[in-house]
Amino acid sequence: MPEKKNPALVLPSMNRRAAMLSSLGVALVAGGTACSSLKASESAAEDQNSYPFFGEHQSGVVTPAQDRLHFVALKITAETRKELQELFMDWTLMSRSLMAGQDVGEEKPLESPPDDTGEAMDLPAAHLTLTFGLGRSLFLDADGKDRFGLADQLPPALEDIPKMSGDMLESNWQGGDVCIQACADDPQVAVHAIRNLVRLAAGRAAVMWSQLGFGRTSSTSTAQITPRNLFGFKDGTANIKAESKDSLVDHVWASGANSEGNPAWMEGGTYCAVRKIRMHIEPWDRTSLKEQEEIIGRTKKDGAPLSGGGEFDKPDFSMQGKSGPIIPDDAHMRLMHPDNHGGAKMLRRGYNYTDGSDGLGHLDAGLFFIAYVCDPRTHFVPMLRTMMSSDALSEYLRHVGSALFAVPPGVKDQDDYLASGLFKATS
Amino acid sequence: MPEKKNPALVLPSMNRRAAMLSSLGVALVAGGTACSSLKASESAAEDQNSYPFFGEHQSGVVTPAQDRLHFVALKITAETRKELQELFMDWTLMSRSLMAGQDVGEEKPLESPPDDTGEAMDLPAAHLTLTFGLGRSLFLDADGKDRFGLADQLPPALEDIPKMSGDMLESNWQGGDVCIQACADDPQVAVHAIRNLVRLAAGRAAVMWSQLGFGRTSSTSTAQITPRNLFGFKDGTANIKAESKDSLVDHVWASGANSEGNPAWMEGGTYCAVRKIRMHIEPWDRTSLKEQEEIIGRTKKDGAPLSGGGEFDKPDFSMQGKSGPIIPDDAHMRLMHPDNHGGAKMLRRGYNYTDGSDGLGHLDAGLFFIAYVCDPRTHFVPMLRTMMSSDALSEYLRHVGSALFAVPPGVKDQDDYLASGLFKATS
Repeated sequence: MPEKKNPALVLPSMNRRAAMLSSLGVALVAGGTACSSLKASESAAEDQNSYPFFGEHQSGVVTPAQDRLHFVALKITAETRKELQELFMDWTLMSRSLMAGQDVGEEKPLESPPDDTGEAMDLPAAHLTLTFGLGRSLFLDADGKDRFGLADQLPPALEDIPKMSGDMLESNWQGGDVCIQACADDPQVAVHAIRNLVRLAAGRAAVMWSQLGFGRTSSTSTAQITPRNLFGFKDGTANIKAESKDSLVDHVWASGANSEGNPAWMEGGTYCAVRKIRMHIEPWDRTSLKEQEEIIGRTKKDGAPLSGGGEFDKPDFSMQGKSGPIIPDDAHMRLMHPDNHGGAKMLRRGYNYTDGSDGLGHLDAGLFFIAYVCDPRTHFVPMLRTMMSSDALSEYLRHVGSALFAVPPGVKDQDDYLASGLFKATS
Repeated sequence: MPEKKNPALVLPSMNRRAAMLSSLGVALVAGGTACSSLKASESAAEDQNSYPFFGEHQSGVVTPAQDRLHFVALKITAETRKELQELFMDWTLMSRSLMAGQDVGEEKPLESPPDDTGEAMDLPAAHLTLTFGLGRSLFLDADGKDRFGLADQLPPALEDIPKMSGDMLESNWQGGDVCIQACADDPQVAVHAIRNLVRLAAGRAAVMWSQLGFGRTSSTSTAQITPRNLFGFKDGTANIKAESKDSLVDHVWASGANSEGNPAWMEGGTYCAVRKIRMHIEPWDRTSLKEQEEIIGRTKKDGAPLSGGGEFDKPDFSMQGKSGPIIPDDAHMRLMHPDNHGGAKMLRRGYNYTDGSDGLGHLDAGLFFIAYVCDPRTHFVPMLRTMMSSDALSEYLRHVGSALFAVPPGVKDQDDYLASGLFKATS
């Protein structure tokens, strides 16, 4: 691995909140019963507050979905492969600090701009995760140009999401050379992370679009309660959970076995499919509860299949009612069910958003859909096509944004960096 | 008081989360040591989770600033005074349910649209507060028309905020006939509240603009740690706190004594001044720490005045350094200090926001400034004018939105309703 480019990015040994408490004269004694106003349990909580950066996979995929999101798509403005590689090295170092709840960089003299922008200075790590993805345009730009000499490593699964009937995509909400997903318990921590990563990339990358998500709409752990989307329904009941190791291997982590032509550097990676879906909440709110439940296929209150049982019971798609199946043929839950897609499952990780008003007297709100799959060709595009053409829910939705990213595997250790496999394969 | 208009809006007796736990077979025994999987402390927490709706003043002003905001400005489309009055009565009833963490309305048959949109169904009250304000245009519209027969009760303090040198106001971020500020610990609860209040007003009011704030930038209680704005500085150190009863009487709650010509129905009310301030975070981040601290007048890390001491120590504006005052003449803290404005103080309650990207490669982020004062003519406009003409900080700011509202006093009891004094005074 080449030399670190930015010597300023050394890692301090104490996290932000500990440093603050220390500066207030509060002694930190790990696990002890010290004479201190900081309880041992709070000290322990400091450590439980952050996730490890290093690992086989990137964080923020199977990590129990945090409540808040800041997601950014960037255009790479760096011109050489070397600059791009250095950017990923720099991002790696900064991400380690951010996820550990540390100030980024180091203390500078008064005459220099501070390394850290400071708005998270007193905040804990807040379970921050950072997930980096690479768009098709990084390998081959819109003109078919191989800007960075990466084209022969373009994953075949990283096809553009085809145009769908009913798409109302807006030009400023599509694609991206690189994405960064920041999830945290505290939105200020997520925004701080994205801001500092963007700042670090000044002159090398520019913001194309970014989205704040205020509430998670999926659980990714069996320990979490299923949250609700802005239609008021529990969402993601049948989501892949971190505890289903087999499902992760079969449907989420990319390999030659589940993603045809998957390049070696993407082994253990995954693909991130994003849709910004405006929800027409006003007409929805005028719909009867019966119709809402038939559109979804579940009860609103408990999220149970209309065929009976509790939220997590298996739906009986064959059960008949007075005038056809109890779970209608065009119900969202039926059409999206793995049984209708050769068993293919997604790990969903979307967020509710609101972007103010639409200029027509309504709130502009919806779902920022994020799914992680081993291969979008088999695990995302077919479901999207079915949904947009047949799903009763689509009448209340407007897809305004769309993007797809290859998410490389995790950073193994301190000598490794993000997307290192890609750079090694093309060097 | 006239009959309640909407009989659907009866108040259930159990809050959302208790209802959910109850439906899961968890017994709620207040304060007891019952044989239950719900601990007594959790049961007590349910009650501590909500603020009382009734009171001398509206909630959400001196209430300890919650972390999340959804703020909406509405245009009234109702045509008669009676419809407007009924809207405030309906909002009163719904606000009682929302602040108590209850579903709004009542259970409806399957064939009807549900009263509650449902996305907060499993969530606690999350310390929700709702604060309603009335814009000048409700009394006299842009054409000088008295639409609702309220003009003779227009508070003299409700003058439009004058155009400032340096204003870059955008047409879709100004004014409003009515505002509703929802603050809560959980953004989903705040968004749910605004959405349902807007829905209740369908045909009677339409959304003009709305803003999500992700992190508070002020403390309104001495029990709170001072938060940081997106320049990384502690903000609102010298803010009026709920514990300073005298300051509230002198500077926040409007009366004939502190707000010239204040009408009787606004006794105990306050005025809400709003500015949407885009922050140029990129040039700021390139500025040296020394310059940043001199622009603010405080240290970045601790928020202490540059003249020495700790965060809450009094600044010494006369202290001299090598080349002039230690706290420069154009420092934000000096220019905004009450000593420079005849002792006038504001209760600030602003929030950090990010609205995605600006289309030019940057994040679109800033401060949604909210201040509550007894009279904007003496307690807000002069500070704004000083700030925009002389403050060193202004170079890094762009004021894009502006609005002012009269916030009536609180709803006294269940026979009272929001702005009742105004309707009684004009009947």
